[in-house]
Amino acid sequence: MKNLEVCFTPDLLTYYPPEGKIVVVIDIFRATTTMVTALANGIESITPVASLEECKALQNQGYLAAAEREGKMPEGFDLGNSPLSHIEQDFSGQKLAMTTSNGTLAITKSKTADQIIIGAFINISAVIQYLQGQSNDILLLCAGWKGRVNMEDSLFAGAVAHTLASEVTIANDAAVMALHLYQTHQENMAGFLKDGLHYHRLQRLGRSEDIEFCLKKDVYDLLPIYQQGILMAKAESI
Amino acid sequence: MKNLEVCFTPDLLTYYPPEGKIVVVIDIFRATTTMVTALANGIESITPVASLEECKALQNQGYLAAAEREGKMPEGFDLGNSPLSHIEQDFSGQKLAMTTSNGTLAITKSKTADQIIIGAFINISAVIQYLQGQSNDILLLCAGWKGRVNMEDSLFAGAVAHTLASEVTIANDAAVMALHLYQTHQENMAGFLKDGLHYHRLQRLGRSEDIEFCLKKDVYDLLPIYQQGILMAKAESI
Repeated sequence: MKNLEVCFTPDLLTYYPPEGKIVVVIDIFRATTTMVTALANGIESITPVASLEECKALQNQGYLAAAEREGKMPEGFDLGNSPLSHIEQDFSGQKLAMTTSNGTLAITKSKTADQIIIGAFINISAVIQYLQGQSNDILLLCAGWKGRVNMEDSLFAGAVAHTLASEVTIANDAAVMALHLYQTHQENMAGFLKDGLHYHRLQRLGRSEDIEFCLKKDVYDLLPIYQQGILMAKAESI
Repeated sequence: MKNLEVCFTPDLLTYYPPEGKIVVVIDIFRATTTMVTALANGIESITPVASLEECKALQNQGYLAAAEREGKMPEGFDLGNSPLSHIEQDFSGQKLAMTTSNGTLAITKSKTADQIIIGAFINISAVIQYLQGQSNDILLLCAGWKGRVNMEDSLFAGAVAHTLASEVTIANDAAVMALHLYQTHQENMAGFLKDGLHYHRLQRLGRSEDIEFCLKKDVYDLLPIYQQGILMAKAESI
């Protein structure tokens, strides 16, 4: 059986080398949820970049530019990091450049992986179906919050581990912990997450609707795949 | 209220600066369990050191020398890392030098803390009573396994958080996760931990009796405190 590991933050990635594996990058609140939503609502491709400057440079080349720092949109960008902003407006056919506190960094750090895909509750079945069709070992990489462990990404990792449990070897302690947390709290994820720091941060910023959306399962039947610096929807995988 | 944070591995300590805090170093399988047992059974003091060479050097000066690598005792030392070895023999009045894969490193990395104490299930009430009597913020530092998160140290952190929950602010997501894991599995800790990698490692090495001992609560009413490079029992704290 193939292995399934969970890495709670990109800071610990050194212990789980991505080489040969499929890495699922997870940033539930909100980067990976927003990536899935953007591609499902007409955005042609997403270029994740590390810095605000790189994002600006692409904006100057005609990209739509989304940026987030401390949960907010810095000045001079087209979009922040709310998935709902991609539903409310029509950006069809545009290319999106994106920089966020955690999610884009997690992608950059995984570049040696065999494949990188994007996971969120809103596309969880697409993620799981894709993983089931591949023979590679699986690394569920939680983006965390500025290097710290967070609950919402761990919970999603647990949800994936839960569904795949009979088909994979749960191969590290973090995966067992995530699995148990999900199994205990799957019926009331919001209730569990309300004690989380980022949940509070988003609530303070008036983003309760974002939270609600980020915890919906299978809103979209779409899997973003990262190749040559760009995320695009792999529609035929579903 | 004072804050209680959990750090899942010393590799993430940079996000939880120990300054001004009481750090509880946790290495359930087996370093901190062994430290408590050694001091409870007559060892006068413990000098934790990082390398086998430093441990050897102290052995040459007359210290009893305990060493562990990969769960086993390297050649030429007096003791490995089994807590039971301190019950079976009489080492009363001796000074112990000790180097282990994870626990001693966690102590070394916490040196900027206001206070460092040693926690294990076998002295959990002594740990909690001491924390209750101090005004400092609390950092529960899991030693982990070579930088990786492990279940048994996280579970102990959750047990401490559970008992203190009404008196402290649970101040980071790792603490909430540990708390929930403990609350779910407190009645069957061994059942939960049997899926953990280090549990398996110890079983393979024939150390099932060690595991059983390491999960007993309150075998000793003793708190090891680290001061000026040495661990000694703070008997009067109980």
